[in-house]
Amino acid sequence: MTPKTHISQTLPFRWQDIPVLAYKEDGGTHFKGITRQVLFDEDDKLGVQLRYFEIAPEGHSTLERHDHAHCVMVVKGRGQALVGSEIHALGTNDLVRVPPNTWHQFRATAGEPLGFLCLVSRERDKPERPGAAALAILRADPQVSSFLRV
Amino acid sequence: MTPKTHISQTLPFRWQDIPVLAYKEDGGTHFKGITRQVLFDEDDKLGVQLRYFEIAPEGHSTLERHDHAHCVMVVKGRGQALVGSEIHALGTNDLVRVPPNTWHQFRATAGEPLGFLCLVSRERDKPERPGAAALAILRADPQVSSFLRV
Repeated sequence: MTPKTHISQTLPFRWQDIPVLAYKEDGGTHFKGITRQVLFDEDDKLGVQLRYFEIAPEGHSTLERHDHAHCVMVVKGRGQALVGSEIHALGTNDLVRVPPNTWHQFRATAGEPLGFLCLVSRERDKPERPGAAALAILRADPQVSSFLRV
Repeated sequence: MTPKTHISQTLPFRWQDIPVLAYKEDGGTHFKGITRQVLFDEDDKLGVQLRYFEIAPEGHSTLERHDHAHCVMVVKGRGQALVGSEIHALGTNDLVRVPPNTWHQFRATAGEPLGFLCLVSRERDKPERPGAAALAILRADPQVSSFLRV
């Protein structure tokens, strides 16, 4: 089937024939209140996927790192992100770059949803969650320590 | 220099240290009222660029085609796009897929700016503009004919 050339938004941040998916297929308790929608994928032959994630108020993504990079653009709401050892306050249309092998976590801390586009390679490694030693290093910074949700 | 991990929006659809560029460096009269900002590029090692284009009211992009594909997401305003032989009415957050070798043109026809993200391969071929024969074929459809700006 030929991919459609126009995909309308049907409700705010919902698109025609694009399913709202679980954030991660394997479940887990290391994230909270987050959905995933794949906007562009292999049909588009760019070697990347563009996904839309939405974190409900007080929710968060998994604290993790991996070899692949993320390019992120906030398109709804506000929140915060840890990237490496820095915590950024995020507003709509802000950009976030997660370099390879960098601990990161997104949180909807502003009492409103945090919705963002995330660009990744289609071929990518599996995320790694921090072990006790990595957590101890991250927690050495009191601000980071109080930000983390694991 | 290490790329920054957080790039704030400073004014609506303007970003810290991201210049507002001409739509095309070679100038031309085949487009009108359109700017370009490169949000993510080679630093991000994904083989793609994510650009933000904004078309002023009554402006338009070049009518063109090329071997590379575009993945587009409208993030500001409304307008219309020709993709192949179809004219789509575009609203904020709509997605547009421009397949390879497909004539396309974006226009800000709604009395407001049309701003969109456009994802492309970093390595890509040069766009081709229609010659007289291709224009005649496009113009055989009266709706398309009245839409085109060349």
